[in-house]
Amino acid sequence: MGTGVQRTTRRQLLSAIALAGGTAALYQAMTTLGHAAETQFTGPPNLSGARKGATVLVLGAGLAGLLAAYELTKAGYKVRILEFQNRAGGRNWSLRGGDTYTELGGATQKIGFQPGNYLNPGPWRIPHHHRTLLHYCRQFGVALEPFIQFNHNTYIHSSTAFGGKPVRFKAAKADFEGNVAELLAKSINQNALDEAVTAEDRERLLEALRGWGMLDKDYRYVSSLRASAHRGYERPPGGGVNGAPIPSPLLDFHDVLDPQVWTSMSFFMGHEMQTTMFQPVGGMDMIGKAFARQVQDLITYNAKVSRIAQDRKGVEVTYTDTASNTVQTAKADWCVCTIPLSILSQIDMQVTDEMMAAIRAVPYSGQVKIGLEMRRRFWEEDDSIYGGHSFTDQEIGLISYPNNDLFGRGPAVLLGAFAREPGAYWLAGMTPEQRIEVALAQGSVIHPGAYRKEFMTGASVAWSRVPWALGCCARWSEETRKEHYQTLVAMDRRIVLAGEHASYVGCWMEGALLSSLDAITRLHKRALEA
Amino acid sequence: MGTGVQRTTRRQLLSAIALAGGTAALYQAMTTLGHAAETQFTGPPNLSGARKGATVLVLGAGLAGLLAAYELTKAGYKVRILEFQNRAGGRNWSLRGGDTYTELGGATQKIGFQPGNYLNPGPWRIPHHHRTLLHYCRQFGVALEPFIQFNHNTYIHSSTAFGGKPVRFKAAKADFEGNVAELLAKSINQNALDEAVTAEDRERLLEALRGWGMLDKDYRYVSSLRASAHRGYERPPGGGVNGAPIPSPLLDFHDVLDPQVWTSMSFFMGHEMQTTMFQPVGGMDMIGKAFARQVQDLITYNAKVSRIAQDRKGVEVTYTDTASNTVQTAKADWCVCTIPLSILSQIDMQVTDEMMAAIRAVPYSGQVKIGLEMRRRFWEEDDSIYGGHSFTDQEIGLISYPNNDLFGRGPAVLLGAFAREPGAYWLAGMTPEQRIEVALAQGSVIHPGAYRKEFMTGASVAWSRVPWALGCCARWSEETRKEHYQTLVAMDRRIVLAGEHASYVGCWMEGALLSSLDAITRLHKRALEA
Repeated sequence: MGTGVQRTTRRQLLSAIALAGGTAALYQAMTTLGHAAETQFTGPPNLSGARKGATVLVLGAGLAGLLAAYELTKAGYKVRILEFQNRAGGRNWSLRGGDTYTELGGATQKIGFQPGNYLNPGPWRIPHHHRTLLHYCRQFGVALEPFIQFNHNTYIHSSTAFGGKPVRFKAAKADFEGNVAELLAKSINQNALDEAVTAEDRERLLEALRGWGMLDKDYRYVSSLRASAHRGYERPPGGGVNGAPIPSPLLDFHDVLDPQVWTSMSFFMGHEMQTTMFQPVGGMDMIGKAFARQVQDLITYNAKVSRIAQDRKGVEVTYTDTASNTVQTAKADWCVCTIPLSILSQIDMQVTDEMMAAIRAVPYSGQVKIGLEMRRRFWEEDDSIYGGHSFTDQEIGLISYPNNDLFGRGPAVLLGAFAREPGAYWLAGMTPEQRIEVALAQGSVIHPGAYRKEFMTGASVAWSRVPWALGCCARWSEETRKEHYQTLVAMDRRIVLAGEHASYVGCWMEGALLSSLDAITRLHKRALEA
Repeated sequence: MGTGVQRTTRRQLLSAIALAGGTAALYQAMTTLGHAAETQFTGPPNLSGARKGATVLVLGAGLAGLLAAYELTKAGYKVRILEFQNRAGGRNWSLRGGDTYTELGGATQKIGFQPGNYLNPGPWRIPHHHRTLLHYCRQFGVALEPFIQFNHNTYIHSSTAFGGKPVRFKAAKADFEGNVAELLAKSINQNALDEAVTAEDRERLLEALRGWGMLDKDYRYVSSLRASAHRGYERPPGGGVNGAPIPSPLLDFHDVLDPQVWTSMSFFMGHEMQTTMFQPVGGMDMIGKAFARQVQDLITYNAKVSRIAQDRKGVEVTYTDTASNTVQTAKADWCVCTIPLSILSQIDMQVTDEMMAAIRAVPYSGQVKIGLEMRRRFWEEDDSIYGGHSFTDQEIGLISYPNNDLFGRGPAVLLGAFAREPGAYWLAGMTPEQRIEVALAQGSVIHPGAYRKEFMTGASVAWSRVPWALGCCARWSEETRKEHYQTLVAMDRRIVLAGEHASYVGCWMEGALLSSLDAITRLHKRALEA
């Protein structure tokens, strides 16, 4: 068939371009041919032919470590993983009823959620373009379900707009777009943009503004059935005698310019935030558990690493078995170290001064997440909100509605806070009980009445107090990237670092996996050359 | 608790307002209090105390008829339903492998889909605010799953822009917003809007435009990592040594103004099109079947109504039992007629001239839907598209990607066309085989190569050729609404009409249900007064 021929030709062309001009030229060509790059993942690495008896020590049984162990074992290496905790998965983690969690400072929470309910303290959503993660989820049998990221019907709340009351996202978005369209149309019609835009494009733009912004025939954005079709009605269309809709009044223009409005709109256009997104059925840790199953015999749990040494022949890691409180050593030819920099910077490590400086250069963020179990899904039943997020400028940052068991009748867990600095610092300084109280008080602003009434129990994780991570994820700045990134990801003799901190997809599982694949590919190459 | 008190007070206030000022005042007050109306549904009707022995004949076992029968039976009426087809559900319909469908004109299709696959020729998605439908789905045990309505990563295709090649929705949307933001910022900075906007709001607006439109520090929208974070990268962020992203080039401004871009953006803000949306697990007809189960003993199938007569004492309907080809009559005190106007206008009916004029005044739309079963989910595997729609200005209108069994490995059914006039007229004039060929040819423009290669079998429904509907749904204009709507929904002595055509939520199941509830509520009132 004709299309088959065309396809082959394109592929041959791309191969030729890649050979001639390298990766950047290839990506350029792909985009030009209508194939924008979705990911740097090009399939699982094709590693094989490890030297007989070659060994690798992997530090950390998070996703980066587990994947490294899995692929290196397939390549023929003898692999061992040392893990500080008594479980695998690392920050890929879910808290369930019956779990106990003790944070730095000593506060212990006994989680009281009903069976089937959970809080994902770390990662909680998967973008459609995180192809590495999606690939291994499929391969390892992790069932995924949609994560409702974008929901027109959630609330926006700002303490400095709309009288401090929540408004529906759709109404704020429609009014922002309507006002922007009206103002730009006015400029065009006043000939203010005659130099910037051709006469033909001015006509096209006016038509576009009217259609996109729901302007009337005079290019005005006014309360009308037309505007209500985007922003919501005073009385929505119905059936029978009283079926006719009634238009809704517009929000105040000054309020519509509140940063909460445009930051929310911009948020949903963010690369990692765009739909479609997914979550594992049953909790995020289904992923960590599935990865761990592939290499379960290789993991030593309760191993607290205190020293990482290397010489020309190999790597020696000293660790304490925290179960027996005995100091032990492990040796290997090579080491893939996935310990978060926040922890690693405190470990005695035989690397170059430049590497040590890189490890110490990157601060960690300290998000706080709070899960609130509610007796019933009042956000669905009373507010017609099924998944998605209501944003607020209060410390809790948002309320996110569960995506599992939509329309369920039993208790469900809301994400009652996803706080970032400075709100996160404030919440981290509190006891778990105090954090719940803040979440209830601030959440009640968005869902008055039901929020406290339906509350059953809560759980919180302040990442700056997580003993085995001391933070949520690496926070690179442009400056630290420039100065330290290439050092951090480069092999330091027999040691290579991997994890979200060794990627440009920071704070995401995908970054950890892509970093891991890149690290082990280079390690394997070096091992064959050595 | 304080919030409990507050809640009661609000409710009491709303009751008082409703008593004093009626429904419109109530809606006004609810909005003011931050409770924009989501629906006209206020719960199932509380009908009871029908006169002993009172009977109702319901014509049509679509959703409106089934609900009328269900609620009137609960209210104490003796109900009978006459249905033309040999199944209930009406336009709530799914075609599956093994089904046979003969359209007007005689063309017969034997559907060849694999087990579990289906095409929903009629309704296929449920908005979150269609509370009547959601209420009864829950009550009747219909399991729902998310319908991925909004997907940033689908394609937009215009034959008059982007060289006729598909572009990602996210890229077109980002570039539209970026250009609009830059132009409006330019106007503001040239003082063109000083009279329209206060100095304070100009500053707020500039900040908003920069943040929303991803403008640089000089308020320009340029190819950059910043813009790429919304529109997609040339090379997306990755891990390890080559992790740094590469920005993508912008689309041509003239092309970004193509109507396909802004109509798509506006589409997703439409009241009925906003997220979250749902579909029944297993096919849309799960709803019709669940409704039918509630009243299954009341339905007479294969009943072709030819005459609807009434006098002061009751209603008499003449119908042909198409199975035995015998003419029969059915009598009742009252009649709820849910037959589509396209059919009803051809039936001998004893109503006022005004009602007959109303019935004949409303034309029906003739959408065409085409289902294409593909060997594998290439849109997921090759294009990272999970659900959602790619829009095109070709006759097929769109390609919509299945929302069930995401990540599945077996064959799946794409919606390969959802054509409206004039494309629908053109496709309806073809044989089913020709329609499939058009869908493949036009779909291949968006997914070259894979589309034809993976195609297995197809099915099409041209609604203008559906024997029992003669169209998809009622197309009211502002003028016909004004002249005929209230007549159409009013009781004509002992007969009341119901269905999506008797609502302002035309073409949606919710309209049929709201219309039905309104109709039977008035019928019940009249019956008690009679």
